[in-house]
Amino acid sequence: MTTNAGAQDQQADDCFHVFDTTLRDGAQREGINLTVADKLTIARHLDDFGVGFIEGGWPGANPRDTEFFARARQEIAFRHAQLVAFGATRRAGARASEDAQVKALLDSGAPVVTLVAKSHDRHVELALRTTLDENLAMVRDTVSYLVEQGRRVFVDCEHFFDGYRANPEYAKAVVRTAHEAGADVVILCDTNGGMLPAQVQAVVSTVLADTGARLGIHAQDDTGCAVANTLAAVDAGATHVQCTANGYGERVGNANLFPVVAALELKYGKKVLPDGALADMTRISHAIAEVVNLTPSTHQPYVGVSAFAHKAGLHASAIKVDPDLYQHIDPELVGNTMRMLVSDMAGRASIELKGKELGIDLGDDRELVGRVVERVKERELQGYTYEAADASFELLLRAEAEGRARRYYRTESWRAIVEDRPDGTHANEATVKLWAKGERIVATAEGNGPVNALDRAMRVGLEKIYPQLAKFELIDYKVRILEGRHGTGSTTRVLITTGDGTGEWATVGVADNIIAASWQALEDAYTYGLLRAGVEPTQ
Amino acid sequence: MTTNAGAQDQQADDCFHVFDTTLRDGAQREGINLTVADKLTIARHLDDFGVGFIEGGWPGANPRDTEFFARARQEIAFRHAQLVAFGATRRAGARASEDAQVKALLDSGAPVVTLVAKSHDRHVELALRTTLDENLAMVRDTVSYLVEQGRRVFVDCEHFFDGYRANPEYAKAVVRTAHEAGADVVILCDTNGGMLPAQVQAVVSTVLADTGARLGIHAQDDTGCAVANTLAAVDAGATHVQCTANGYGERVGNANLFPVVAALELKYGKKVLPDGALADMTRISHAIAEVVNLTPSTHQPYVGVSAFAHKAGLHASAIKVDPDLYQHIDPELVGNTMRMLVSDMAGRASIELKGKELGIDLGDDRELVGRVVERVKERELQGYTYEAADASFELLLRAEAEGRARRYYRTESWRAIVEDRPDGTHANEATVKLWAKGERIVATAEGNGPVNALDRAMRVGLEKIYPQLAKFELIDYKVRILEGRHGTGSTTRVLITTGDGTGEWATVGVADNIIAASWQALEDAYTYGLLRAGVEPTQ
Repeated sequence: MTTNAGAQDQQADDCFHVFDTTLRDGAQREGINLTVADKLTIARHLDDFGVGFIEGGWPGANPRDTEFFARARQEIAFRHAQLVAFGATRRAGARASEDAQVKALLDSGAPVVTLVAKSHDRHVELALRTTLDENLAMVRDTVSYLVEQGRRVFVDCEHFFDGYRANPEYAKAVVRTAHEAGADVVILCDTNGGMLPAQVQAVVSTVLADTGARLGIHAQDDTGCAVANTLAAVDAGATHVQCTANGYGERVGNANLFPVVAALELKYGKKVLPDGALADMTRISHAIAEVVNLTPSTHQPYVGVSAFAHKAGLHASAIKVDPDLYQHIDPELVGNTMRMLVSDMAGRASIELKGKELGIDLGDDRELVGRVVERVKERELQGYTYEAADASFELLLRAEAEGRARRYYRTESWRAIVEDRPDGTHANEATVKLWAKGERIVATAEGNGPVNALDRAMRVGLEKIYPQLAKFELIDYKVRILEGRHGTGSTTRVLITTGDGTGEWATVGVADNIIAASWQALEDAYTYGLLRAGVEPTQ
Repeated sequence: MTTNAGAQDQQADDCFHVFDTTLRDGAQREGINLTVADKLTIARHLDDFGVGFIEGGWPGANPRDTEFFARARQEIAFRHAQLVAFGATRRAGARASEDAQVKALLDSGAPVVTLVAKSHDRHVELALRTTLDENLAMVRDTVSYLVEQGRRVFVDCEHFFDGYRANPEYAKAVVRTAHEAGADVVILCDTNGGMLPAQVQAVVSTVLADTGARLGIHAQDDTGCAVANTLAAVDAGATHVQCTANGYGERVGNANLFPVVAALELKYGKKVLPDGALADMTRISHAIAEVVNLTPSTHQPYVGVSAFAHKAGLHASAIKVDPDLYQHIDPELVGNTMRMLVSDMAGRASIELKGKELGIDLGDDRELVGRVVERVKERELQGYTYEAADASFELLLRAEAEGRARRYYRTESWRAIVEDRPDGTHANEATVKLWAKGERIVATAEGNGPVNALDRAMRVGLEKIYPQLAKFELIDYKVRILEGRHGTGSTTRVLITTGDGTGEWATVGVADNIIAASWQALEDAYTYGLLRAGVEPTQ
């Protein structure tokens, strides 16, 4: 067990759990395919947001998840969250202490383990192919073994609500067994997602009364009621909610973390996040969407760009008198803003906040902030996004604050050629023509792809003048086609992450084609990297 | 009043109302802008679906809505629905019979009128700028005047729930006034969308008991609970639900018609649609999305393409035994289908299920299934994903089943050049060298970007031989860099969606550079499109 895997300061109050399973159950969403690096980034965002538990995956079942736990222990100092490993109860007929899958849970180093257990009699028979009694023994043995090994154990009762309908006594016996074996929380899962709030509330109340176990809820959104089902369970006495960022998950998805947490904090008056975290919710929701490479839902409750958008006109004057007449909460509570027009996402407050975050105090210069807001609005209209491109935003901010853009060289032209030869090999060649310190530089290089070839040509040309470039490494590269109904003819946005061994920074480029957009993002990446290295601009 | 504007056969049972307001409140959604022709098309779809009432707009307030009512009377013979005109109570201090806006409601010819009334005391004072008593008089006069004129009247109590919290006696007085003046239904509106189901249920129960009025519910989705709030109101005794197709509406949106109706029919066992209509739900949801020009939500409950999609592997064998163990309803009940996603957990059972879905029976050939499983695993290791690329998977499956890949041409080589010129413009040029029907084809084209240029060059070269290509349109294009810690040097995966006006298909390409990966996905897209069009492979 490692110290890094547990929260270090401001540990969440244990009497109510916000448990996030984006990295495990959320990753089941069709179209999501997370690398280990993606998972680490999302874990950092979730920890910033202040969830109490982050379920990281199923170590042992999947090499990527095993690697995630190993790297998370090394690389992340969690401030709020505890890391949770997910796994199954021991195999039928085996000993928990000898089960390889159970051992992998211990090896993950996670201080908390969630065990999935069957609680629907037919699933025990058909999917698990064992007896109802052996299933109870599997729950009992695995929980008590992990507790003996010093782990905190939660038990997910899979298909609980369907199981309860089919055989309530057996479903409750699974809850009771887990509880008595030492599980801290037993989670009732609506795995098929068919429940409605009134049903959830009735079942949770009864199970709570009949078993005395501490209960949690895991809801899927197949009826469009996952948020309401989660809250219904809380109304009935559940004190642990399992959710995923942006509701990602299998089929329709899981209970969406953000509206659940917002309802608890703002509607129930229940403090479930660290101070100030709720105001970061919109930013974190969008940042996670960028990592999983899905367009943030514009109409997501609380955090969507349309969530507080009003068609102007009708109510405008009344809104000016009293905005609370036309909105259910103050959008700033969740880091969102009321919008009266179609376009702008950037408000003064967020620019000032962002400047502060970057160590540039804009608070006193209202005229400058206004200029930056205008510039951001104009660029976002073109397709730029600064939410996930801090370095490009800082360059924009500095350009406005300093009156001119930082420049280390000037581009005359560039060219990239990709060729598929008759023998099946590819040639990627790029030529750049640049000016730096009064010198004209023409450089050509080959690469694995056109962007890599451009990157190398630029280095070949500039490294003599700026030896710092040798340390820069292209770490991640993401492409999104905007206005997705027009295929490759539409605007392309590229996000690039670059590192220099001591840190990483993200830049954005937008253009009518992917190579030109990549070039822009590369240029910002070099400029920011040189600025970061303390190199003085030469022109 | 016109006969065409009312339902002609199979009139919905009046004891429960499914009331659709897509054309009025749904049109408030950011990004939706409906022509009269759009509104007529949507009205036909809603009537096919069998809603009882279609609120068409606000005649008089908006020339487009006035025209819609005039044309709907002429052009649509409604089979199930009644057309509803929306409008406001008379102006303060005026007579209902002399109010131009009220007259426009009568002139619309709609047999039913929904009047919006203020029920929140502060809104009466601040937005309406009149006295609380005059507001009651406005409700009373307008309702009774329209009833005298032979209209059926429903009253929307705007901001009811916020108003009830601020001044419950006044909010109830508005309900009582409308009821006593002859309104058939009084609808409690959560206009700001901030309510949760438990609150809605409590308020609806109390208002029902205290006023005796027939109540309806109109919920907005700002807490993510609009569907649940609607059902909570029904639980409390409301017998009229106002919804919009796909949940379109202002800000986050309105209660989504489809999950509300599906819950009522399938979970409550309440018949609210004509026979057979529910099985059309998926088709109608997508058709309406097309009319409003929004991509259908892939993750919408019941009707999304992902709503019954399962990641294969783990559960596939159990799903084969009993699909109902893993889905909350039979997807065919709502016109949707179960889909098995072919992911890296693919096992035999899921490949067999997938083959069946594509109409290729693999059940008897265990050796063939084994080969396909191996091939998929091998390709997924290289970075391919078939989960989001059904067409590429089908080509792979057919290639294994038929012993050779479908081929309409052979590629000798291709080349793409992207150039950034000193004047800031870009040139994108591609050349392809192909063989088709024994002929060598060399074609060059320009495009918006390198992939677009390749796409065009391929069409220039092949369209003479395969005129079907002219119909193919590149609809969406997604890029993902795999092994995200290696920048542009790593593997690139491209997913392309192509359409031909009657359907869409998705293909995948993986290569060491983005252009080569795009080329592969394009080749699969063309091959699948030609296969789909029934063209015989030539080599």
